[in-house]
Amino acid sequence: MKIAVCQFNPIIGDLKGNSNKILEGYLRAVNEGADLAIFPELFLCGYPPLDLVEKKEFRDAVKITAEEIASHTTGTGLIFGSITEDFEFSVGTGVYNSAVLCYDGKIQFIQNKSLIPNYDVFDEVRYFEPANNVSIFEFKGERLGISICEDIWNDADYWKHRRYLVDPIQKLVDEKASILINISASPYAYGKRKEKYNMLSVLTRDDKTPLVYACCVGTQTELIFDGGSMCFNSSGILEMLGKTFEEDFFIYDTGKQYDEIKNIEDSFEVEVLNALVLGLKDYAYKTGFNKALIGLSGGIDSAIVAYIAVRAFGAKNVHVVLMPSKYSSEGSVKDSEELIQRLGISAENISIQPVVDKTLEMLESAFKGLSEDITEENLQSRIRGLYLMSLSNKHKFLLCTTGNKSEIATGYATLYGDMCGALAVIGDVYKTQIYKIASYINSKVEIIPKEIMNKAPSAELRPNQTDQDSLPPYELLDKILKMYLEEQKEFKEISDSIGDPDVVRKVLRLVDLNEFKRKQSAPVLRVSTKAFGYGRRFPIVQGWRK
Amino acid sequence: MKIAVCQFNPIIGDLKGNSNKILEGYLRAVNEGADLAIFPELFLCGYPPLDLVEKKEFRDAVKITAEEIASHTTGTGLIFGSITEDFEFSVGTGVYNSAVLCYDGKIQFIQNKSLIPNYDVFDEVRYFEPANNVSIFEFKGERLGISICEDIWNDADYWKHRRYLVDPIQKLVDEKASILINISASPYAYGKRKEKYNMLSVLTRDDKTPLVYACCVGTQTELIFDGGSMCFNSSGILEMLGKTFEEDFFIYDTGKQYDEIKNIEDSFEVEVLNALVLGLKDYAYKTGFNKALIGLSGGIDSAIVAYIAVRAFGAKNVHVVLMPSKYSSEGSVKDSEELIQRLGISAENISIQPVVDKTLEMLESAFKGLSEDITEENLQSRIRGLYLMSLSNKHKFLLCTTGNKSEIATGYATLYGDMCGALAVIGDVYKTQIYKIASYINSKVEIIPKEIMNKAPSAELRPNQTDQDSLPPYELLDKILKMYLEEQKEFKEISDSIGDPDVVRKVLRLVDLNEFKRKQSAPVLRVSTKAFGYGRRFPIVQGWRK
Repeated sequence: MKIAVCQFNPIIGDLKGNSNKILEGYLRAVNEGADLAIFPELFLCGYPPLDLVEKKEFRDAVKITAEEIASHTTGTGLIFGSITEDFEFSVGTGVYNSAVLCYDGKIQFIQNKSLIPNYDVFDEVRYFEPANNVSIFEFKGERLGISICEDIWNDADYWKHRRYLVDPIQKLVDEKASILINISASPYAYGKRKEKYNMLSVLTRDDKTPLVYACCVGTQTELIFDGGSMCFNSSGILEMLGKTFEEDFFIYDTGKQYDEIKNIEDSFEVEVLNALVLGLKDYAYKTGFNKALIGLSGGIDSAIVAYIAVRAFGAKNVHVVLMPSKYSSEGSVKDSEELIQRLGISAENISIQPVVDKTLEMLESAFKGLSEDITEENLQSRIRGLYLMSLSNKHKFLLCTTGNKSEIATGYATLYGDMCGALAVIGDVYKTQIYKIASYINSKVEIIPKEIMNKAPSAELRPNQTDQDSLPPYELLDKILKMYLEEQKEFKEISDSIGDPDVVRKVLRLVDLNEFKRKQSAPVLRVSTKAFGYGRRFPIVQGWRK
Repeated sequence: MKIAVCQFNPIIGDLKGNSNKILEGYLRAVNEGADLAIFPELFLCGYPPLDLVEKKEFRDAVKITAEEIASHTTGTGLIFGSITEDFEFSVGTGVYNSAVLCYDGKIQFIQNKSLIPNYDVFDEVRYFEPANNVSIFEFKGERLGISICEDIWNDADYWKHRRYLVDPIQKLVDEKASILINISASPYAYGKRKEKYNMLSVLTRDDKTPLVYACCVGTQTELIFDGGSMCFNSSGILEMLGKTFEEDFFIYDTGKQYDEIKNIEDSFEVEVLNALVLGLKDYAYKTGFNKALIGLSGGIDSAIVAYIAVRAFGAKNVHVVLMPSKYSSEGSVKDSEELIQRLGISAENISIQPVVDKTLEMLESAFKGLSEDITEENLQSRIRGLYLMSLSNKHKFLLCTTGNKSEIATGYATLYGDMCGALAVIGDVYKTQIYKIASYINSKVEIIPKEIMNKAPSAELRPNQTDQDSLPPYELLDKILKMYLEEQKEFKEISDSIGDPDVVRKVLRLVDLNEFKRKQSAPVLRVSTKAFGYGRRFPIVQGWRK
């Protein structure tokens, strides 16, 4: 069977745009002689639709649009993801996350999702009931075993700890599926594509059934979908792999033999840069921005964000502002100017000092008798935020937030200051990883000036300040953070590994205490298995200490 | 049976503090001759513990603390809410939301929660498995039927649409429970106490079984718990009602007869004021603040927030700042001064104009050739935010955000400007409701100057500006918003009711478009059935239009 995989990029809620994409992909599949065209999970409404699913008018419009799409089909099959409703059972939401199969002008079969994920960034139990039934659908001489995303993530042969009692794929295999089809929308994290490959390779080999796994691509605010749709033969060999971080269309013929694909995932630096470029670009596209603004501090974080913005928007659409104060080192300005020239972007330099001085003058009597403290540091950062937001408002720039994951974790950032912005581009990337990415960027030709790479990280908010006045060295800090956040290790295990309980306690405490700042942060582009934001939910006010 | 209801206020994660409260309440119950003392849902860890539940060290500490508490018990029973673990089944989280019953020095019985809510502010499927079994526990000659919160919200006789197939209360009744006990942590919304009363009255009357319903009190960031524990006899008569919005301890004797309580809920104005005072006070207490700061604009919103802060902190701990600009009306300053005097709070007046002028001067070349627009308005608001945050930093004031629900809904607020602050005190109260509350406050003696009540609402960010330049009249706006948000009606139904599809379309569009601002807003104290924040989850980027 010739199956066209339509790895496209939907906009959540944009039924007209998404259905046009479905019809375009279907038409191309028909023209290229495919038997069946498939689209990712919930493609018609976009994933994740969140509380839109609770709107009856939205669900009704989805239903009408799905039927309209089906009315255009001929003998070639079409499978797309959509929400569907079934109120046969009088309890629960009555709404399902479904694969809709149509041909000959109508919807012929609906397979609902069986396993409803409700962890990390997933809240699907909030909206969807699990399938009451899983069954084979016979089409053009093949026994199609259709499933949706999470359905394929509960293989008893692969997972030591399973989340669910049932295994819908096993049932499809037991019922002698000749081809497995999974439509998916699985958010990107570095390392996950390799994991999918390993899992699906074991599954197809053990079950001796080929699999077509259709993935989503594009950004939905903080979630990046990386494409990389996969087709396995019945021996667990990966025979086709969709493009990563861009749309793709290809036809997989289950009757043909292909060369094995072994290169699944690129290096961390390449992958994460590609992910962030797509993340920023697609967020801007979907919100109607075409120009980016970055406050350039002379440090490595804003340099990397400027580089990413250039890849996302093109150099002529990236504008940066230098906002020196009396604490800014001469190097900061010089290094920034070098970077600006190398990137070919536009820039201006507006000192914050006169506004800092004027503000402090106005607040003088309110501050009387109190010594300088963090207030004066935050104030500088907030005046930079004021400048940036004013330029963003006036020129319709998308303001990129430049905080990294190490800073966001420890609260080493000023609320309404350097935290201002629409999107935290590198908010899921640790400082030490930023250096690695910068080295990669510079590997062929130096783009990020080496002075920026080599200087000690500093917020430059008081004389001779460095980040390490307040934080442990980044090598140590990031090691602790990674264990605590991504690996979900806890105090004892981290202390045993690091050997310094006091510093571990201090870091964990900073992470816990700064939940209030993160509540008010810009959305963070997710590239790890545990990003700040939607998938990590801690009480802002809590007293747990270890 | 004499049952002591310990309606106390826990701190999430503070196992030591919460277990001390349990032991204090238990001791008092023993001393006062009770047979059984009961505490609300998840009292030991605080509700909602969110992702703390995923921490093994936390769960282990909870287990040890629960056993430690049990070791102090004598013949008097003790029931408290706690997480427990049971890995008998190898799939799922293995964690339960439980009622733990102890006496004679150890845990004697654990009843797990059967119905796991996963809608609005509830994410419990993320953490908890449902009970595998529901059973009666015999204690001191009574057959106790113990359940946890949501378990009691699925009565087929009361609800037209049920969320769950099973009804654990029916099972307990069928197994001849002589007393029903429900431990609860159900977040406050105006009208909900009456609904609970109606539902539980029907349930106890139909099931001919008395019920002791122990409720939580206190604030957990945005969620307010209002107390109001209830005891019903077997005829559906409410015989005892805990204090509302404060801690309480009382003993209910199922063998005695009491006068019927009919006054369940106060007026909207009284209830919501009480809720917000508790909300603000408890948030401050739990985060270590004892002084509040408010930017006083001369409008009604900041006036009400100042009044609430005075009730929460005492007048001597409330400080306000007037921050006039060249657009501020003379009345604004005069009216504010009148209010300050009446409330007996401290104040200062710091003009923003010099900093506004200096900032515009610095940005002049960057703005060249472009006309004045929203940028200059936002800039004023952001400089006020800068002042307020600087004072908050310097003096350790808790900055109260003063935006109301109508503004937050429509995005009529400046990000990093008037949206600055730790807690959006009236963010779940519509503008028209604010006026009602102000009238109530003034009903005995005028506290909010009538000039503030009577002036046309204005942000005063440009000459002669009023809110109605940008928004429909508040009476109309709030009607539309309430139908859209709380009543979850949609475009057609609202248009049919309002009769003006264009204005309805405009308002709904504003709500949908401003999700990005709300992502970065302070937590909003919840007093309605649908507040902005945790219980309402819409995509920031989406294309759904009706």
